[in-house]
Amino acid sequence: MKIKELALLIEGTIEGDDNVDITDLSGIETARLGDLTFAMDEDKLGLAEISQTVCVLTTKTSRRSTKTLIRVNNPKLAFLIAYNVFHEKLSAESFVHPSAAIADSVILGKNVRIDAHVSIEDNVVIGDHATIEGGCVIKKNCKLGEHCHLHPNVVLYENTILKNRIVLHSGVIVGSDGFGYVRDRGEIYKFPQLGIVVIEDRVEIGANTTIDRGSLGCTMIGAGSKIDNLCHIAHNVKIGKNVIMAAQCGIAGSSVIGDNVTMSGQVAVIDNITIGQNVSIGGQSGIIGNIEDNAAIWGSPAREVKQTKKQMAVLSWATKNFNALSKIIKEKGVT
Amino acid sequence: MKIKELALLIEGTIEGDDNVDITDLSGIETARLGDLTFAMDEDKLGLAEISQTVCVLTTKTSRRSTKTLIRVNNPKLAFLIAYNVFHEKLSAESFVHPSAAIADSVILGKNVRIDAHVSIEDNVVIGDHATIEGGCVIKKNCKLGEHCHLHPNVVLYENTILKNRIVLHSGVIVGSDGFGYVRDRGEIYKFPQLGIVVIEDRVEIGANTTIDRGSLGCTMIGAGSKIDNLCHIAHNVKIGKNVIMAAQCGIAGSSVIGDNVTMSGQVAVIDNITIGQNVSIGGQSGIIGNIEDNAAIWGSPAREVKQTKKQMAVLSWATKNFNALSKIIKEKGVT
Amino acid sequence: MKIKELALLIEGTIEGDDNVDITDLSGIETARLGDLTFAMDEDKLGLAEISQTVCVLTTKTSRRSTKTLIRVNNPKLAFLIAYNVFHEKLSAESFVHPSAAIADSVILGKNVRIDAHVSIEDNVVIGDHATIEGGCVIKKNCKLGEHCHLHPNVVLYENTILKNRIVLHSGVIVGSDGFGYVRDRGEIYKFPQLGIVVIEDRVEIGANTTIDRGSLGCTMIGAGSKIDNLCHIAHNVKIGKNVIMAAQCGIAGSSVIGDNVTMSGQVAVIDNITIGQNVSIGGQSGIIGNIEDNAAIWGSPAREVKQTKKQMAVLSWATKNFNALSKIIKEKGVT
Repeated sequence: MKIKELALLIEGTIEGDDNVDITDLSGIETARLGDLTFAMDEDKLGLAEISQTVCVLTTKTSRRSTKTLIRVNNPKLAFLIAYNVFHEKLSAESFVHPSAAIADSVILGKNVRIDAHVSIEDNVVIGDHATIEGGCVIKKNCKLGEHCHLHPNVVLYENTILKNRIVLHSGVIVGSDGFGYVRDRGEIYKFPQLGIVVIEDRVEIGANTTIDRGSLGCTMIGAGSKIDNLCHIAHNVKIGKNVIMAAQCGIAGSSVIGDNVTMSGQVAVIDNITIGQNVSIGGQSGIIGNIEDNAAIWGSPAREVKQTKKQMAVLSWATKNFNALSKIIKEKGVT
Repeated sequence: MKIKELALLIEGTIEGDDNVDITDLSGIETARLGDLTFAMDEDKLGLAEISQTVCVLTTKTSRRSTKTLIRVNNPKLAFLIAYNVFHEKLSAESFVHPSAAIADSVILGKNVRIDAHVSIEDNVVIGDHATIEGGCVIKKNCKLGEHCHLHPNVVLYENTILKNRIVLHSGVIVGSDGFGYVRDRGEIYKFPQLGIVVIEDRVEIGANTTIDRGSLGCTMIGAGSKIDNLCHIAHNVKIGKNVIMAAQCGIAGSSVIGDNVTMSGQVAVIDNITIGQNVSIGGQSGIIGNIEDNAAIWGSPAREVKQTKKQMAVLSWATKNFNALSKIIKEKGVT
Repeated sequence: MKIKELALLIEGTIEGDDNVDITDLSGIETARLGDLTFAMDEDKLGLAEISQTVCVLTTKTSRRSTKTLIRVNNPKLAFLIAYNVFHEKLSAESFVHPSAAIADSVILGKNVRIDAHVSIEDNVVIGDHATIEGGCVIKKNCKLGEHCHLHPNVVLYENTILKNRIVLHSGVIVGSDGFGYVRDRGEIYKFPQLGIVVIEDRVEIGANTTIDRGSLGCTMIGAGSKIDNLCHIAHNVKIGKNVIMAAQCGIAGSSVIGDNVTMSGQVAVIDNITIGQNVSIGGQSGIIGNIEDNAAIWGSPAREVKQTKKQMAVLSWATKNFNALSKIIKEKGVT
């Protein structure tokens, strides 16, 4: 890609030789000849100068350099925009590996890549520019929009709906049966899980995360949300837009997570509650009731961060002053 | 299915047109013409009446309706019984996908379905009416009883024994090596894991759950138990009958979980302890000692629920009254 | 194997018939004729004597027996050394299943076994004596050293480096994208994940564990470390040598775990901190700051074990004496 073309794309200004071609993007440590990299500060710019990179994205105020610079407001953001353009250009010529088992009734869009040992069952629709990597299994009646990317060994149960530009990392399971049972006279009966999962645009889901389908209705993941590895999303959960969920979180059945919620790792949310919009949740929290919009919570059970920290401080204080407290109680003789 | 046949099966009484055929079952929201649904209360019955459903399972006391009703004691239970009968009828004609790699010595029962890219190694026995979906790997000497259902990408390590009517969801791993090491002069040596896993009748296991095989003896999951997604069952664990384990729980080596135990999500149980029968365990509990029958416990470390709640209340109280407590200590001058 | 050969290997002394051949190793409960087993105490020796085993590894001080004994310092350690020798002898004749999809540019070492439905992409190098079981997917440019064993359905993303004698259990994902996003004007953009994962000699990783690749640099697992099932290792984490990590732990981005750290289950470590060498960490701990060498910590948030236990004791005491404390506050009338 011509450097001028790139500068236009990321709204940057070139400083130095503008007659340079970019062949790839990389971090400073691994840059090869022809690579573009980025430097957020002067130190990084110094490292970039002694690397093989030909061009550096940097801030509007950094010093001049022996390398060609493109000055932008946010070099990190510009780097990722550039990366995405490069990556998109490289992907997805039409290809179906001969070992793939694809039912006759499957409809494939344009520029779809399907790798070895993939299974796609009856009545599945795969949108344009999809990439389905090795070992994925897509059960019947699933619908995938455009630019979806399933990494190896992903499984979609029947009737799953993926909208556009969704990325599922390896081992993700979407649409598995919810954990719904009915007890009757000492026996446990499985309640049929007849619902589906709908995943909206630009969602990315981390490796080995599992998302159960609705029991009668549907499980929803809102547009732009990002879920990390090894999370568990139970049946009928509704996750809003632009939610960030770190690894190993678990959301129990039918709970609702508002837009823009941010969740650290290993959080647990019980069933049938609502977490408002813009809530931020500390690591390992256990949430056992509804949470209002804009709250910042932490702890198990979770309270406002300020309250949780105060309680911890008081317990530390009481431990330090245990002898004194103990003496007072003894003197008073009260019980 | 004839409605009369169905009513007989679920011990219900028909009210209205009994000359109706049921083609499928569904929730009220998604009901299509010919479907059977269920309504636990009058509101739901109202919704069912304006849906396309032809027949509604409802209580003995609900009002009359324009739809054909079948009155039963527990409509939800009746619905699932009806569903299971329908589902069983539809499943399992004999079928082996040509891409499946099945060793010559494998014994397949009647009406077994084996999907694409399955691998089954030497001396495996698969019982009647089994369904082995795409990408499953069954290592040598495994024995599967009747009506087992392995969803896509399940792995059974060698010598695993599944009894009858077992459901393993996608990505379940059964029989992986336990976490057993011996330290000697600064090095860590793996202790050989030579045991097996035995899973008894009617167990269902959620997506991406892992169950390690015994180191020398065996890991057991008792009849009727249900384990949710992303749980970890270590080597030599014994899980009783009709245990309910929610998502992301972990049971360390050689611990014993009694019959009818109910466990919320993200519970941890240390190694070599025994949890009695009928114990109920709150979410995120950490269990570090034996628990008696019929206890209700919560917390990390786990105590009786009442005790844990009292401790939380006292800490809240102390936090509210911190200034007063602090003043008393200061006045006394004790340390 | 001749018993004399074995005794030499494990530095043991034979007592009884030394004209015996060992055909396999097993635990006492499952011993068959020709098997070697081990007995750490007199009780176990008694059980071994009534089993079909032909030879028993036991301590230097245990009583004489009707079975052939090999006396060693540590029977358990001797057993595993013997097992490993047996196991190695049995493994890995060269074999590639015809269904495997292996790119032309792949380089395979000597005595490599590749099972059904494996995919190996361009420019992968597989070292001698590797075992790649059914359904594994190895993306382009991965390098595997000697004696690596990938159990079924493992996925390696592109550029992953495995050194020698590495065991990955089923469902392990190595090299998935890290959880790195940049927010800009309400939108969440994925930051490109261009780094790699390097796993050093003799590492073993449990079923369904996920290890993300570095965002720009690399994620490292040090030699001899053992990671249990369902753990999450985020991008750019550095794990030292001989670390023991029990199941369901999660390490957030760029954190460093020192050599010989031991971690119980369900521990969470936040991002960008350093845990020193030889630290031992209790189950369900939440670690939110740097930890010095040789510390023993527990709790969420984690403190020194002694401190955490003291706090628990004080809270129990305060709960028992709540009425007294409450009375004193009321009498004083302070607030």
